[in-house]
Amino acid sequence: MVFDKELFVSAPGKVILHGEHAVVHGKMALAVGLNLRTFLRVKTRKDGKISINLPNIGTKQCWEVSQLHSLLPAFQDDLKQARPSSKHLETLRNFVEFPKENKETESLALLAFLYLYVSICGRDMPSMDVVVWSQLPTGAGLGSSAAYCVCLAASLLTICGIIEDPLQHNTKISSWTLTEQELINQWAFQGEKIIHGNPSGVDNAVGTWGGALQYQSEIITQMDRVPMLQILLTNTQVPRSTKVLVAGVKDKLLKFPDIIGPVLSSIHAISQECQRILKDMTSGLSADHYPILEELIDINQNHLNVIGVGHPSLDKICQVTASHGLHSKLTGAGGGGCAVTLLRPDTDPNIVETVKQELISCGFQCWETSIGALGVSIHLPSSLPADIRSEFGI
Amino acid sequence: MVFDKELFVSAPGKVILHGEHAVVHGKMALAVGLNLRTFLRVKTRKDGKISINLPNIGTKQCWEVSQLHSLLPAFQDDLKQARPSSKHLETLRNFVEFPKENKETESLALLAFLYLYVSICGRDMPSMDVVVWSQLPTGAGLGSSAAYCVCLAASLLTICGIIEDPLQHNTKISSWTLTEQELINQWAFQGEKIIHGNPSGVDNAVGTWGGALQYQSEIITQMDRVPMLQILLTNTQVPRSTKVLVAGVKDKLLKFPDIIGPVLSSIHAISQECQRILKDMTSGLSADHYPILEELIDINQNHLNVIGVGHPSLDKICQVTASHGLHSKLTGAGGGGCAVTLLRPDTDPNIVETVKQELISCGFQCWETSIGALGVSIHLPSSLPADIRSEFGI
Repeated sequence: MVFDKELFVSAPGKVILHGEHAVVHGKMALAVGLNLRTFLRVKTRKDGKISINLPNIGTKQCWEVSQLHSLLPAFQDDLKQARPSSKHLETLRNFVEFPKENKETESLALLAFLYLYVSICGRDMPSMDVVVWSQLPTGAGLGSSAAYCVCLAASLLTICGIIEDPLQHNTKISSWTLTEQELINQWAFQGEKIIHGNPSGVDNAVGTWGGALQYQSEIITQMDRVPMLQILLTNTQVPRSTKVLVAGVKDKLLKFPDIIGPVLSSIHAISQECQRILKDMTSGLSADHYPILEELIDINQNHLNVIGVGHPSLDKICQVTASHGLHSKLTGAGGGGCAVTLLRPDTDPNIVETVKQELISCGFQCWETSIGALGVSIHLPSSLPADIRSEFGI
Repeated sequence: MVFDKELFVSAPGKVILHGEHAVVHGKMALAVGLNLRTFLRVKTRKDGKISINLPNIGTKQCWEVSQLHSLLPAFQDDLKQARPSSKHLETLRNFVEFPKENKETESLALLAFLYLYVSICGRDMPSMDVVVWSQLPTGAGLGSSAAYCVCLAASLLTICGIIEDPLQHNTKISSWTLTEQELINQWAFQGEKIIHGNPSGVDNAVGTWGGALQYQSEIITQMDRVPMLQILLTNTQVPRSTKVLVAGVKDKLLKFPDIIGPVLSSIHAISQECQRILKDMTSGLSADHYPILEELIDINQNHLNVIGVGHPSLDKICQVTASHGLHSKLTGAGGGGCAVTLLRPDTDPNIVETVKQELISCGFQCWETSIGALGVSIHLPSSLPADIRSEFGI
């Protein structure tokens, strides 16, 4: 264990670029790192206390490390076995004694933290302060919980000396070796299981590796290199149930197999073509690349409407952006939720600003950001974005 | 030849319900009779003159029948062979000596008339007045030229006694036997060749038989029975080139075979499913029928956007009608042109009127009419719609 240490770790969010819903039916999806990130600061302390502060969801807790030692026996049997059992969860729930007014999000975030802390640190529990602050909205299908778990896993594994701090060579931003990232990803996946029950593993993989990855039939494959693409990410803030939307697509496929089946095949081919273009872009931009990416976005947005996961708010985003020559599609479950709008490197910043303002005036949240983002990273404080430094009080 | 005779003949227009563009790539299309009709009045006269009056396009011509006899030698060789040769066309063009200001539409309409008159009547050329008035806009992909040719063929074949006047039994509206309709269709197809060069034969088949027919790989099959469905037909009046749109779809298919190919397959399945529902409707309406027809319309409209034949004016029609719970798709070539909006039997007439007014205020033409219309028909004057009677001055 490393004492007197302060680490700043970040992990990206996730958007599905193509293949949402089709992936449920064995087709390929393309998930990319979203440069709206979750940042974690961990600082060791010497008073035998452990605190966690999650300002986004208004949660702050502090325990004596010695109290947490009492949890170890329950974890002894299958310590480091890396699968949260019902016994683990029961033990943790009894320990925390969440007050009644605690919301589900808060409870799950604390359970995931405690699970990872006890499982990863074992007997060498460090006394420390943890603060996590995220640029990602929660519950919007942008992988905020995975980014949280990735940050926790990376910082705990580093603090405990299980993986090495890659910042020792004084680079401003750095990441871990591939093997170490694999370990971070595995632990983050366990945290995700606590929060989501039965996650696909895509979100934590994107949070760990960033860039782009394809996902098909439960196999996740990372793409070697991908370009960073500028986007607008718009949150309609229209709530929806992923479960209901997924069931709706299945019903439609059963009702019209010969009509909907080919649409899913077409979506699969869109993911493949997009992957090909992204790969091609890394060896030099051609005049075709952006028009094709835009065409794929338009086609897929129509397909997503066909399979019944559109929403008037998403149509509105498409209309507003199209009226300025920009191309948008929903991302994730649809039926509300978020949309991505592709920006070209030469898109006039005034147009981007106008579009943003129009979308905001529709009642949407809108961020200008990028995809193909860096995976889990460790930062020198000076390399943190200004808003994050101010959140962390540095 | 029947003397002292007056006939009133009508033929329906055509809309493609599903399968436009996909049909070019070997998929099935579903064409239906449109109850915007072309009406023809023919009245024999005794002064040895033959006149044709086409008020919709401002054309009026009159010849001596004896002059037209001079054309017969050119037709002698292959009289009744029913294929307009370049020799026929050259002979007719020289005969008419169109004034320079004559528009292409007028010239072709007169050529088709003269070709059918000389070919069908042969030596027994009757002296008569022909007036044709249509509810169909021309050049809007609604089969107006085919309805014109069907009316001409039916009336000329009847006047010349080649087929029997089915109205002898004093029914108000009547049609010919299937064998006679076959002959009408064959001659109408020849007229279409003069006007369109290389027509598919679908328009004249719909003009002759009405109802619905499927068209695939150049084979036209009539559906036994179909229901009449109420629709709004909206003409954006946005001009477009069918040739350019068809070429665009082909390019897109070549560019993205695995993305666009499945979409064409899905359109094929939509046509099949629609055909199944239409057939089902004739044996009694179920609560599912209209919702499925509406769903198929929505899906296909998205597909047509995917293959690149949409247009903002068509999007506008979809938006306006959707805001009142109605479902629309483009019909025909797209890129402007016309759209159909399905009305349910219980759609509130006030809503229909509101939607019509909104569409008209967008600068579109809009008709409330029906599809699955009767094919070529012969009318007692008293059974003609009031507007047509007034056009014909009766």
